[in-house]
Amino acid sequence: MFVILVYDVNVKRVSKVLKTCRKYLHWVQNSVFEGKTTEARLARLMSELKKIINREEDSIIIYCFETTRYSNREIIGLKKGGEDYFI
Amino acid sequence: MFVILVYDVNVKRVSKVLKTCRKYLHWVQNSVFEGKTTEARLARLMSELKKIINREEDSIIIYCFETTRYSNREIIGLKKGGEDYFI
Repeated sequence: MFVILVYDVNVKRVSKVLKTCRKYLHWVQNSVFEGKTTEARLARLMSELKKIINREEDSIIIYCFETTRYSNREIIGLKKGGEDYFI
Repeated sequence: MFVILVYDVNVKRVSKVLKTCRKYLHWVQNSVFEGKTTEARLARLMSELKKIINREEDSIIIYCFETTRYSNREIIGLKKGGEDYFI
């Protein structure tokens, strides 16, 4: 499973969110992580994030794709981080 | 085609990037847009963005998926905007 995670959290909690996401995914750009993972690892990541964020203020979106086979990634400007899953 | 666009641009250029992205996609969360579009419209969006950003400083990633059929979107915390393309 391929995952794109985008967070928009209060600056007070950013470092904890970053630290947690880094355990499971690759940092791509400010506020964005991506990576291949499993259902079980994703469930663990989500459970850790739920303990960190304030649900009244923060927002994290996780896009899950079963395959990256028909996908493409375009980068305009700097390529800041991450691995290339796309051909 | 389904597109997720994530931008990380200097604050000086954010409002122009926002205005341009809003013409083509739906705002979802700080730094994130998504939406269904066509190859032609995406090419137009990219060409407009290329004129706005500074390639030495800014970064915009556009993930393109031919289908959202096998996809899932999880939101932790606030749902800030956007439409529901996922069932």
